[in-house]
Amino acid sequence: MDRIPTSTLKRLPQYLEVLKQFTRAGLREASATKISVFADLHQTLVRKDLSYTGINNVPQSGYNIRKLSRAIEDLLNWSDTSSSYLVGVGHLGSALLGYQEFSQRGLTIVGAFDNDPAKIGTTIHGVPVHSVLEITGEAASKGIQIGIITVPPESAQLVADLMVHSGIKAIWNFTPQKIHVPSEIIVEYVDMFASLAVLSRRLAERDAH
Amino acid sequence: MDRIPTSTLKRLPQYLEVLKQFTRAGLREASATKISVFADLHQTLVRKDLSYTGINNVPQSGYNIRKLSRAIEDLLNWSDTSSSYLVGVGHLGSALLGYQEFSQRGLTIVGAFDNDPAKIGTTIHGVPVHSVLEITGEAASKGIQIGIITVPPESAQLVADLMVHSGIKAIWNFTPQKIHVPSEIIVEYVDMFASLAVLSRRLAERDAH
Repeated sequence: MDRIPTSTLKRLPQYLEVLKQFTRAGLREASATKISVFADLHQTLVRKDLSYTGINNVPQSGYNIRKLSRAIEDLLNWSDTSSSYLVGVGHLGSALLGYQEFSQRGLTIVGAFDNDPAKIGTTIHGVPVHSVLEITGEAASKGIQIGIITVPPESAQLVADLMVHSGIKAIWNFTPQKIHVPSEIIVEYVDMFASLAVLSRRLAERDAH
Repeated sequence: MDRIPTSTLKRLPQYLEVLKQFTRAGLREASATKISVFADLHQTLVRKDLSYTGINNVPQSGYNIRKLSRAIEDLLNWSDTSSSYLVGVGHLGSALLGYQEFSQRGLTIVGAFDNDPAKIGTTIHGVPVHSVLEITGEAASKGIQIGIITVPPESAQLVADLMVHSGIKAIWNFTPQKIHVPSEIIVEYVDMFASLAVLSRRLAERDAH
C-alpha cells in the first residue's frame, strides 16, 4: 500500500464534499477543472491528488463521480469500519459520541471512558461510559485500534499512556497538549486553539489598521 | 501591529500549555531549552517564536513564566473578549456552546441560531437560540465580530453569506466545505475530517505491512 502525502490526504475529504454537491445537482461526471473551481484549488494540484485514486479523467467528460467517490473512500479506508474508544466525556467528548458524520467516514466509537462517578455506567448517544480504570481490558477484548482523547490538556499524556498500554495503534488527540508515545503509534491532532489563535490575531491585526 | 506568521501563531497556544504545566509544578522561570523539550520543538524555533512577545530570555534563568504567558495571550488577543455567534446547534454546535475553554481564550458566544423550531427559543448552556432568519439584526445590534459555522457542509456557504451580510468580520468554519467570502473577511477552518483522513490512511498503510 503506497504512502500518500499528508497534504493530499487532507484535501481528499474536500473533494468528496464537492462530489457530493455535484451528485445532489444531478451530475454523473465532472472534469478536473470543474472540481478545482468548486474546491478552490489549482487544477494541476487536483489532477495530481486524484491520480492516487487510479480513476481516469476521460477527455471531454471527466471523472465518473460515483467511481471517483468510492475510490477516494477506499484510499482513506473510510469504506471499512474502524472501532475506536473515547476518553473524556465532557462537552466536546459527548458531542463526538453523537456525531453521525464519523460513521459515514469509517469511524465507530464503541466505548467511552471517564473518571466522573456520575457518568460511569450511563449511556451517551448509545455509547456506554466506563471507568478509565477499565480501559486496558475493554480495548484489548474488542480489537479497538483508535483512541480519541477529549480530556483537559493536563491529563492528555496520562490518557495517551493508558491507551498505548491497552494496545491501541492510533491516537486522535483533541487537546492542544503534545503527547509522547512510541514511534509506531500514529498520532493526529485536531487543534482548535491553534486555529482560534490565527483567527483572533488576524482580527486584532485588521482592527489595528 | 506586526503581522505574525501563521505557523508561529499556531504554536503559541502550545507554549501556553507548557507554561501552565510549569506553573502547576511551581516554577517561575523557564529556559527556551526546557520549553522546547516539553513542546517537542527545536530550540531555535522556540526562541524565534517567543521573540515576537518582546519578553527577554535572561541568561541562566530564562523567561519569566507569568510575563511570557501574559505576553502570548496579548499577542493572540486572548486577554480581550471577542463576541461571537454560532450557527447550527447540532451535537457539535451544542458542545461548543458549553465549551468553557473558549472563554479563557477570549471568545464568548453570545447567541446561537438554528432552523429547527424545536430549538428556537430555548437556551443551551446559557446561550439563547434564535431563528437563522434573525441573524442580521442580532449581529449588528450587538457588535459581534466572529461567526462560528457548525451546520452540515451543504449549508455552510449559505450561512457564510448570511454572516457576511450581517456584518461579521471573521468566520470560524467547522465544516469541511470551503466557503467563498469577500477577501476582507478572515476565515479559519477546524477540519476534523482532514485529520481523520490522515489517521485512517496511516493506520491502513501500517496494517498493510
